[in-house]
Amino acid sequence: MKTTVAFTGVCPVPISEYPRIQMAHGGGGKLMHRLLRDIFLAAFGNDTLNQQHDSSVLPSPAKRLAFTTDSYVVRPIFFPGGDIGSLAVHGTVNDLAMSGARPLYLSAGFILEEGLPMETLWQVVCSMRDAAKRCGVQIVTGDTKVVDRGDGDSLFINTAGIGSIEHSLAILPTGVRPGDAIIVNGDLGRHGMAIMSVREGLQFETTIESDSAPVADAVSALIEAGVEIHCLRDLTRGGLASALNEIAEAAGARIVIEENLVPLREEVHAACEILGLDPLHVACEGRFVAFVAAKDLERSLDILKAQPFAWDAQLIGRVDSEKQPIVILKSALGANRILDMPTGEQLPRIC
Amino acid sequence: MKTTVAFTGVCPVPISEYPRIQMAHGGGGKLMHRLLRDIFLAAFGNDTLNQQHDSSVLPSPAKRLAFTTDSYVVRPIFFPGGDIGSLAVHGTVNDLAMSGARPLYLSAGFILEEGLPMETLWQVVCSMRDAAKRCGVQIVTGDTKVVDRGDGDSLFINTAGIGSIEHSLAILPTGVRPGDAIIVNGDLGRHGMAIMSVREGLQFETTIESDSAPVADAVSALIEAGVEIHCLRDLTRGGLASALNEIAEAAGARIVIEENLVPLREEVHAACEILGLDPLHVACEGRFVAFVAAKDLERSLDILKAQPFAWDAQLIGRVDSEKQPIVILKSALGANRILDMPTGEQLPRIC
Repeated sequence: MKTTVAFTGVCPVPISEYPRIQMAHGGGGKLMHRLLRDIFLAAFGNDTLNQQHDSSVLPSPAKRLAFTTDSYVVRPIFFPGGDIGSLAVHGTVNDLAMSGARPLYLSAGFILEEGLPMETLWQVVCSMRDAAKRCGVQIVTGDTKVVDRGDGDSLFINTAGIGSIEHSLAILPTGVRPGDAIIVNGDLGRHGMAIMSVREGLQFETTIESDSAPVADAVSALIEAGVEIHCLRDLTRGGLASALNEIAEAAGARIVIEENLVPLREEVHAACEILGLDPLHVACEGRFVAFVAAKDLERSLDILKAQPFAWDAQLIGRVDSEKQPIVILKSALGANRILDMPTGEQLPRIC
Repeated sequence: MKTTVAFTGVCPVPISEYPRIQMAHGGGGKLMHRLLRDIFLAAFGNDTLNQQHDSSVLPSPAKRLAFTTDSYVVRPIFFPGGDIGSLAVHGTVNDLAMSGARPLYLSAGFILEEGLPMETLWQVVCSMRDAAKRCGVQIVTGDTKVVDRGDGDSLFINTAGIGSIEHSLAILPTGVRPGDAIIVNGDLGRHGMAIMSVREGLQFETTIESDSAPVADAVSALIEAGVEIHCLRDLTRGGLASALNEIAEAAGARIVIEENLVPLREEVHAACEILGLDPLHVACEGRFVAFVAAKDLERSLDILKAQPFAWDAQLIGRVDSEKQPIVILKSALGANRILDMPTGEQLPRIC
């Protein structure tokens, strides 16, 4: 995998005498302290984390803060376009952005399986470091646990995040209004299909790369321009269909989406057909839906298209005036169907 | 187990048609939404969490905040004196308290193994709810992932916590001064030996119950009384020995502990002898060490003894004037030995 190869050349693993994680790396003794120093502090080190205190002391953000958490269990842990480490940073940064917050601090909790190659851990940790740097967030506190071989699946990561809310908008599903324009920041379903293509051994002319990316800057640009944002939601598990249904239900509003406006790449469409999946149910990791006041539609699209990870922003539908918590998908031929939330499990271990 | 029986009578599991966790409970669709509503919101529900937003929006605490995270992988998940749920609250609240912070908000990230009995999850969740209530913290954001049968070990929990720092002390290992009195808030090693006794099938006249408990009120009482606290650390993995060695190293200070002052229960002593463990290496989950200015020793002990979970507070040693990062254990007969950090893994999956 690209990341792996490029990486290994640059940055040798700082612990050489233990090629694999041992139970003692989680035991609170010398080995754990060496792991903390030589892997985690070596990669993430900053003034706060270096204190190695039970909790980190930080200046409080503005008047309101955003707080979120996500655990990451994706398999495989390296995939085209990303890995569990960068995903664990992007995912949590994006959750903060969905409140319109500026991401500031992350925690990182690792659950490592005994026997995990030290080199794998180091690659993941360096990927987190690089992603955090790109997102402008600091990893300020962390924790490591080791579980017996067979009791975990190589590694799980939890990140929690704190962001600063500097606007006075109420960005919430209940803020959605009739007439609101519904925008997505790019083509859908690439993360889920990148993972599934690897797992199922699907080959296409172009490799499907995950859309995993941070979207906080794109959201900030909208807020700074004074766009009247009513609701934001990122399109992770359950995809666009779940996000829209959640919002329709919370707002008691009918949402109408134009199927031919929803951006989808050819190869994602093909992979979904092969696997019998609805692309609107597939998870993204760098995509969000924004409900903005109708008057701000054109301006919002212009702003987003100038931002990284939002170049292909697109209007996909509107909020109806009908007070009915339902999502309607209008086909190119004008036929309507209800876009429901997925019932079962289509895509396990996608994030 | 007491907790289990008492609990089941009071509070029936709110999901009856799925007696076990399915992969689809993590899939982002209808089943996941039902799990969130009927288990997590049913137990933890509050105005913030009920918004079910990607991140929670909260008023910022004072000028400084404390931020921490811990994952919990303890086995068995129910043990005498507690369970993984209350532990996940106490542990994180205690980490915040070690900065002298007032704990405010928790996140809760669950990694569930497919097949986990719904009733087990419900018991754990209710235990977290009760512990959070006792600690005066709100669970304001959360996440659930489901991993395939065999890829996890029933359940893991991560909690991250935010606390408010209202004092102006610098509570840090580097704050330790020669002459400082070293206090513990009670007898040591009960958490680790409670777990190990269950695992190893050890029977004593008295069941060893975990010391798992929140200590934030005890710390707050010291701060409010104006005690000059130089350093606090909770005695989890690696026990007293690890905590003191970390502090000695960070402060470049020699720490002298009187062995006969260290409070230890008879049954903990006996269990340690049987298993060949040093009780000073054994983890506690409701114990901390406080370094206070010598002038404040008596007052500190009086204050702590009036607090829950600190009734048995005890002076155990002093910081020496020698600039040597080492921990000395003085036996009752006056012999000195170096109290080192544990090297290997004594007690896996203790927290």
